[in-house]
Amino acid sequence: MTTPFLPGGDSQDFPGSVGWVIPQKICLASSENPFHLETGGELSHIEVEYETYGELAAGADNVVLITHALSGDAHAAGWDQTAVQKTTSGRYMVRKDGYSPPRSYRRKKPGWWDTMIGPGKPIDTKRFFVICSNVLGSCYGTTGPADINPETNRPYGLTFPVVTVGDWVRLQSLLLDQLGIERLYAVVGGSLGGQQALEWALAYPERVGKAIVLAASARLSTQGLAFNSVGRYSIKSDPNFHNGDYYRSAGPEHGLAAARMLAHITYLSEEGMDLKFGRRLQNKIKPDFSFDVEFAVESYLNHQGKSFVERFDANSYLFVSRAMDYYDAAERWGEGDLAAACRRLRSEILVASFSTDWLYTPEGCRELVHAITRTGRPVTYADIPSQYGHDAFLVETKRVGRLLAGILGAKSRFA
Amino acid sequence: MTTPFLPGGDSQDFPGSVGWVIPQKICLASSENPFHLETGGELSHIEVEYETYGELAAGADNVVLITHALSGDAHAAGWDQTAVQKTTSGRYMVRKDGYSPPRSYRRKKPGWWDTMIGPGKPIDTKRFFVICSNVLGSCYGTTGPADINPETNRPYGLTFPVVTVGDWVRLQSLLLDQLGIERLYAVVGGSLGGQQALEWALAYPERVGKAIVLAASARLSTQGLAFNSVGRYSIKSDPNFHNGDYYRSAGPEHGLAAARMLAHITYLSEEGMDLKFGRRLQNKIKPDFSFDVEFAVESYLNHQGKSFVERFDANSYLFVSRAMDYYDAAERWGEGDLAAACRRLRSEILVASFSTDWLYTPEGCRELVHAITRTGRPVTYADIPSQYGHDAFLVETKRVGRLLAGILGAKSRFA
Repeated sequence: MTTPFLPGGDSQDFPGSVGWVIPQKICLASSENPFHLETGGELSHIEVEYETYGELAAGADNVVLITHALSGDAHAAGWDQTAVQKTTSGRYMVRKDGYSPPRSYRRKKPGWWDTMIGPGKPIDTKRFFVICSNVLGSCYGTTGPADINPETNRPYGLTFPVVTVGDWVRLQSLLLDQLGIERLYAVVGGSLGGQQALEWALAYPERVGKAIVLAASARLSTQGLAFNSVGRYSIKSDPNFHNGDYYRSAGPEHGLAAARMLAHITYLSEEGMDLKFGRRLQNKIKPDFSFDVEFAVESYLNHQGKSFVERFDANSYLFVSRAMDYYDAAERWGEGDLAAACRRLRSEILVASFSTDWLYTPEGCRELVHAITRTGRPVTYADIPSQYGHDAFLVETKRVGRLLAGILGAKSRFA
Repeated sequence: MTTPFLPGGDSQDFPGSVGWVIPQKICLASSENPFHLETGGELSHIEVEYETYGELAAGADNVVLITHALSGDAHAAGWDQTAVQKTTSGRYMVRKDGYSPPRSYRRKKPGWWDTMIGPGKPIDTKRFFVICSNVLGSCYGTTGPADINPETNRPYGLTFPVVTVGDWVRLQSLLLDQLGIERLYAVVGGSLGGQQALEWALAYPERVGKAIVLAASARLSTQGLAFNSVGRYSIKSDPNFHNGDYYRSAGPEHGLAAARMLAHITYLSEEGMDLKFGRRLQNKIKPDFSFDVEFAVESYLNHQGKSFVERFDANSYLFVSRAMDYYDAAERWGEGDLAAACRRLRSEILVASFSTDWLYTPEGCRELVHAITRTGRPVTYADIPSQYGHDAFLVETKRVGRLLAGILGAKSRFA
């Protein structure tokens, strides 16, 4: 296992950061030992990309697993020094170890949760060994629909098996097995990552000390299903989609952009959008009276759509958003009864909602909290006031940081 | 002017209904007398489609104007006996008088507000002469982008001038002029129709007795702008769009369907969607684990998208939704100050919001109510409890009916 540069300590280049990091790859399925998916398929080859920060303690009792959201990756903290591949069609980037990309560059951005993870930060790498891995079906180094199916020598596309949150968590457990980690001090995630944290506590109650579930409930609402459905409709109905077999030609860029623009609206709150953009025109005093960009919010959404197409694979969007649809903790573990499901829990649980989040609403989060409470198990719940909607779990650095530091710092009542 | 069958009275075929109606056409612009649009363009030929129900009183003091919403038409009540044209590409329907359509049928549905308009109904055709006209730029008989530009002999497409709510209201005022109607007893509309009702009271304060504004505020929110923007993006980026010049080929059906599916989510409330569909699967006990329809809400949205494509023109969607974006009563009449704008009002005003409407929220409606109140003018405001979201103005028949009957029945304080 390659350790990151300046592991766990302050980097001279990036004070307060874990510094440069190198993503790791591990093979977690083989022909002899295939990975069986919950939906029935199997994969005889899975590579998982992950990153680690900090040092594993001798007793392996300081492990914090970070689980990422829909479009996230393993690069949660620090600065990634791996070359990034841009596909020949220029559409999106997938890192391939040992591959010399035609156009490559270093990531210029720190990891997606660098504000939370680092020396002296809430998820303190001086104390914790932090792991984050990319989910199955995504496009950031873990096997997904854009990868070559070894049996056909062509990209999987839609022949990739449908994945679930349960599959992701089981694959993460295999990763921990390989790393010699029996038990997590904590698992922490927001949004779809929060559902993985919850699933960890339900599927492996004895392996989880603390489960920290941010901006996530036990299942997606009907409205959430509806938005995902329209996003996928846009991708699937793009003439460049070719039923997922688009890797040798232009892909469904417009469909993917529309899906992202739409999803992005659900990540912001009405209030936050109003404060940020209002009805302000984009770089003009009077409207042009056209169907081009008039309002600032239109320009912002267009940018979100365009930049997403540069970095994400449309098939992965289908698979990952579908996993989000299917997840239902009550169905999985309680035959529809969430409190029954929660009787499995053995971990300390924190649930945090955000006041203006309308994708995973405070009400939805409280449903989970109430179900846990009904089992007699203590649960810490915070509803964090914020104007930032669903994105607040990434944006409300101070408030989330204080919460995480408190929960992670306290001796677990159940450890 | 052709009068409808059994005008204003009970129809034997449809008890309680105004019965069969025939849409009327009127020409409201000519080369000698072009219509100048607010955005700068002009049209030398405008046909307006409208319907009337009931009988005009001798003093012409019993006129109620109905203003329709985004995808509405002039057919507000009764049963339309005009043949409907389906275009050769089978895409959408436009009625053309004097044209023998290749495939034609009668509308099988009553008018969109038949629950409210009829003999003995809240907008009582025994008492009132009711008018509803299709807005400029739409595709239901009033001139719009699908119509032939007489100067080029080709459909306007995107060369059609950008229209505004102000243009619509002025065109309606020209229609009233032609019909010899000086003053409206009332103007009534919901959603974008509610904004027209408000604009009537602001633009022609002396011509409006009562303005009834349902599920509408003085301007669209940032979030509303965002949703419209994504919908238009879907249409414009559909390869069949051809910059609006698609009338001789397959049109941007997928883009229009996506726009409608998305908009439809904003018409329902989260609560209502949850009650209606929840996470129920569509005609199956277990999921198939696929990207086809799994959940009932997906099936519903697909149906909404498909049926909309059959009945609406994508270019019209661009024009009408853009008019919705631009409308801002405060900017138009108060240099950004809504209370200043409201000082123009001379009519009796009713504003009704619906508790779960998140497109034109109760808060947004109250902003208008408060602005009117600040001018010292009385305003009737009702927040109607409903689970039906924005659609409630069409669905909450009893509650809306009682409100309308009360307001229309009472002697106007300002008449």
